[in-house]
Amino acid sequence: MTFENDLKSIIRTIPDYPKPGIMFRDITTLLGDARAFRRAVDELVQPFAGQKIDSVAGMEARGFILGGAVAHQLSAGFIPIRKKGKLPHTTVSVAYSLEYGLDEMEMHQDAVKPGEKVLLIDDLIATGGTATGAVKLLRQMEAVVVAACFVIDLPELGGADKIRALDVPARALVTFEGH
Amino acid sequence: MTFENDLKSIIRTIPDYPKPGIMFRDITTLLGDARAFRRAVDELVQPFAGQKIDSVAGMEARGFILGGAVAHQLSAGFIPIRKKGKLPHTTVSVAYSLEYGLDEMEMHQDAVKPGEKVLLIDDLIATGGTATGAVKLLRQMEAVVVAACFVIDLPELGGADKIRALDVPARALVTFEGH
Repeated sequence: MTFENDLKSIIRTIPDYPKPGIMFRDITTLLGDARAFRRAVDELVQPFAGQKIDSVAGMEARGFILGGAVAHQLSAGFIPIRKKGKLPHTTVSVAYSLEYGLDEMEMHQDAVKPGEKVLLIDDLIATGGTATGAVKLLRQMEAVVVAACFVIDLPELGGADKIRALDVPARALVTFEGH
Repeated sequence: MTFENDLKSIIRTIPDYPKPGIMFRDITTLLGDARAFRRAVDELVQPFAGQKIDSVAGMEARGFILGGAVAHQLSAGFIPIRKKGKLPHTTVSVAYSLEYGLDEMEMHQDAVKPGEKVLLIDDLIATGGTATGAVKLLRQMEAVVVAACFVIDLPELGGADKIRALDVPARALVTFEGH
């Protein structure tokens, strides 16, 4: 079995969640499998192992699990990007599109210094609303976004292409067709 | 400087947050410092390095960052414990006390098998409401809670003692007096 099929087979699909017609890709079965989790993190880390990465930015909440492990493995710091109102100190924020309407995400203003190299990590990229928002947020603080990496890409929804249109390499370990 | 004082000095204190009289211990400055983050994770891992740990359970949301890194380092799986309504599959839940009133936390019913050894990780223990809730939740599924480990303990609030009263060893890397 290929690496991708091996990882895919351990991701649980929940039909009609959170609403009819959506095939929800549930990564908790992958996280809970010690071997698969280790392999996913190692594979996310591998392209950057020789590079100087200052920080890994992870998006609340599932991006924290993978992002924390990737940051530790790369000996980088970790930057939490959170929903509005969750961070205790001075923040910068950006609006991003949800399926219906807009929301805001935040990071601490002092979380990154100009020119620092940041790797963006999340579990899944779909339409790319949160990931493109995170790239903009990091660039507001003049960080260099080295790449955006995901476990799962749903390419039909075009999120990875939106990241690439911002001149940020986008990479996912597995892809699923359909929504 | 001792290890503890070194880590303490990098944790930011925000007075009167989220309300007057509270000294909020902001761990994002530790997470963001590559050396301190690496050291904190390594120190959390160290007592368990020779043991078989099946899974690390982390509590939403900051517990995910440290828990993900600890799980990867121990070659264990990761179990997310989340606020009610966030997990997509069949869950078990437990009520836990907040400062005012009760809330519920959940994990997937199939996240742990009877007899599996689980290490509980969170950033901070205060009154112990969420941590004791998590121990009860894991025991509902007949997991063996090997220990509960935190970066910060606020011993005056008594949370670590409540964990020990459940016959679970509790450990923190640093302590702060006051609330």
